[in-house]
Amino acid sequence: MRTIDWVDGAIELVDQTALPDEYRLIRVDTVDGLVEAVRRLAVRGAPALGIAGALGVALAVRGEPDPAAAAARLRAARPTAVNLARGVDEALKLLDDGFEAVLARALQIMADDVAACRAMGERGADLVRELTGRDKVRIMTICNTGGLATVERGTALGVIQTLHERGQLVEALALETRPLLQGARLTAWELGRMDAPYRLIADSAGPFLLARGHADAVLIGADRIAADGDTANKIGSYALALGARRAGVPFLVVAPETTVDLSTPTGSAIEIEERDPAEVLCARGVRLAPEGADALNPAFDVTPHDLVTAIVTERRVIRPGLGERL
Amino acid sequence: MRTIDWVDGAIELVDQTALPDEYRLIRVDTVDGLVEAVRRLAVRGAPALGIAGALGVALAVRGEPDPAAAAARLRAARPTAVNLARGVDEALKLLDDGFEAVLARALQIMADDVAACRAMGERGADLVRELTGRDKVRIMTICNTGGLATVERGTALGVIQTLHERGQLVEALALETRPLLQGARLTAWELGRMDAPYRLIADSAGPFLLARGHADAVLIGADRIAADGDTANKIGSYALALGARRAGVPFLVVAPETTVDLSTPTGSAIEIEERDPAEVLCARGVRLAPEGADALNPAFDVTPHDLVTAIVTERRVIRPGLGERL
Repeated sequence: MRTIDWVDGAIELVDQTALPDEYRLIRVDTVDGLVEAVRRLAVRGAPALGIAGALGVALAVRGEPDPAAAAARLRAARPTAVNLARGVDEALKLLDDGFEAVLARALQIMADDVAACRAMGERGADLVRELTGRDKVRIMTICNTGGLATVERGTALGVIQTLHERGQLVEALALETRPLLQGARLTAWELGRMDAPYRLIADSAGPFLLARGHADAVLIGADRIAADGDTANKIGSYALALGARRAGVPFLVVAPETTVDLSTPTGSAIEIEERDPAEVLCARGVRLAPEGADALNPAFDVTPHDLVTAIVTERRVIRPGLGERL
Repeated sequence: MRTIDWVDGAIELVDQTALPDEYRLIRVDTVDGLVEAVRRLAVRGAPALGIAGALGVALAVRGEPDPAAAAARLRAARPTAVNLARGVDEALKLLDDGFEAVLARALQIMADDVAACRAMGERGADLVRELTGRDKVRIMTICNTGGLATVERGTALGVIQTLHERGQLVEALALETRPLLQGARLTAWELGRMDAPYRLIADSAGPFLLARGHADAVLIGADRIAADGDTANKIGSYALALGARRAGVPFLVVAPETTVDLSTPTGSAIEIEERDPAEVLCARGVRLAPEGADALNPAFDVTPHDLVTAIVTERRVIRPGLGERL
């Protein structure tokens, strides 16, 4: 399965808004169609958005009277998604070389992502074995860091997939990941598709289940990693890190090198996106709270590097908890 | 408003499963009806369950061929809830004295609860001021520990109510409390009713918002407190305690003396109730996860006493973190 691909002259996407109820592919052959797909979160996940950005420039070069203007519209479709802008910019560098050159660059970015995820999977699975000293492991994870957030294989969930393929996965415990439920909707769907043993848990159960010995390691992805190893990721990651530390369980961040941001010295410099309170007040469109209720909705948190056992990228393993720096 | 009461020869309950959409009273006049109400959480909260247990014995004496057997069924309806068992046992002592004596005892337990909550509210509010050194405070809390969990005023939420009445509450941050959303549904409803300033947050945001200085103290209730101060409470309490410790924020348990269980030496001896996976797979009746998904659903967790700044009861303040014992 490819979450996003170039097929017969158009972008083909898994429509993630239809999951887990329906697996639906959509074809996008105009920039405006892609902007709409990005806006309504039919495609999401930092690496997947980067590829959407690059492929979108190919659509622009082929079909738009003013390709640069169309690319700018795409670039602005989700202002906080730095990978989308980066993918657009990367492909735009070849604008003067024409459609074939732009498309080739976009396909190269896609191939690089596939290779990077495979390398993270292997390295991460090796490290889990080394750190836990176990042949068979139970892994806790949060949010969706699988093929749906990338192209084919994921980051943290890619490691879980590799463990499963090696016959080493006893169980994945997936946090449902309120408020948008990427764990319950997307990670559960992916784990089911790969026929991996898993159970969902409420987010708040994670730290306690670690205390009671239900997992051998915690694996998370990352939205941004500061130079000192402080890691911004989905809200709830920090609580898991506290629980892992208290339980003596390894806490691993799995993310591509592109996530490392050396221009951010430390996590306290990372601005936390506050999203619409309605996301907390509802779940899948159903109202949870009384009329008049308000909510505070930080989308991300920052895990201090002293709580991070290791960061795994496609190139290396860094141990911030032991003082190693990026 | 009384959450539970004896009215015209039967138990009258606020059906908490209907909140916040509807405020509905239900009448229960058989033990089996009460067992069902307890199981589906129409009545919940440690003190309210204690009163339900005692009033249930009155129903058993009046209507059951074998009152002791019926009381045993009621006693087992929720294994972690020590107050339910204690309420049953307290009333059972008067079994031989007949219905009127049992009922009088149950009504006395109810009156004691009202007085105990008022005392906890005063003592807790004084302690929050002492520990934080602030005239105006922001309080984080989990689950529902308000009048809906007791009879008229709550335990932890009773302290928040007292702070609000004293003009000292800047804001309450209430965790939504997945899977059953007692925070979003019940605590939000009660805070709105008392016109207190509040916002809801996703459970997993609690520890991080403490790290970023959003609350001056954490207040929770308790389902059972072991002799060493280890505290069983709603799943997610332990994660908050870890977050409070790391942030240097006081973490207070507010619960009546009846919650203290000296026969349980330590938290590791407390059995954790695992509830139906469907609670995690759904939210207010809406399916969140794919077909075939399974879940692990511990209803409670245990916070080790070293993370508890103080336990506030109607009689005393104990500081387990400083080595004080119950």
